Amino acid sequence: MEHLLQRLQVTLLREIPITQYLGIIVESYDDQQLILRAPLAQNINHKGTAFAGSLNALLTLAGWGQLWLILAERNISGKIVIQDSSSSYLLPVHSDFSAICHKPSSEHIARVESTLKKYGKARIELYAEIRDDQELAVSFKGRYVVHLETEQ
Amino acid sequence: MEHLLQRLQVTLLREIPITQYLGIIVESYDDQQLILRAPLAQNINHKGTAFAGSLNALLTLAGWGQLWLILAERNISGKIVIQDSSSSYLLPVHSDFSAICHKPSSEHIARVESTLKKYGKARIELYAEIRDDQELAVSFKGRYVVHLETEQ
Repeated sequence: MEHLLQRLQVTLLREIPITQYLGIIVESYDDQQLILRAPLAQNINHKGTAFAGSLNALLTLAGWGQLWLILAERNISGKIVIQDSSSSYLLPVHSDFSAICHKPSSEHIARVESTLKKYGKARIELYAEIRDDQELAVSFKGRYVVHLETEQ
Repeated sequence: MEHLLQRLQVTLLREIPITQYLGIIVESYDDQQLILRAPLAQNINHKGTAFAGSLNALLTLAGWGQLWLILAERNISGKIVIQDSSSSYLLPVHSDFSAICHKPSSEHIARVESTLKKYGKARIELYAEIRDDQELAVSFKGRYVVHLETEQ
């Protein structure tokens, strides 16, 4: 598991270089929730709270990362792209922040895996959130598309 | 007009420091469309296209900037925050990219101004987009809230 998280961290930094400026780190994964973290300092706005663009970027990557883990755990090689997303900024975020992406049910994942193997492509909707001092601050819904990659 | 755009550029860099890492610049404003621009190099992903988080950040700021200009033109001092947004990533973006935010109709702005003056707070929905080689690549809808600020 630890090894997988390190691979995800390396993948994020290598594949999306701006993540290093945003200070994004892979914090934890308990087989259900993936948590990514970013510091307020680099992502602050004039009101002393986190910039919405940074919050959305972290949430987008939490969904991407959750899907990356789902594929990695099943030894599926796939290209993941986001198709659409919506974010609700409910409360300002006053400190370093974590985006939590919930894993879909096993049944849901099995259906996605089956579609992917049958058609070479599948869609999946993922939910993620950011809390500030225990309260829900940003809610996020993202629809991602996975394209099966044939091994080279 | 030129002076106002310079003020917006300075405001973005000062108030949201991460914009300098994203390489965001205020490109133009013709009294209808505000255009912000960002380089692909800083915002690239592993597929050689722009990272969705960067696209969303530029669009979020294009809406914010359009609203900032609307207030500045009317000498209204207000605090602007985004309440919710949705983005559709229709096509990958292969080069430096511009987010275009359209100005709402004069009638719509007049209603928002009236609500703001009456209640000290108003909501406004703004649309923005990113094109890649003339084709619509990302569409964005953002709902912003303006809070009237009393001069100190």
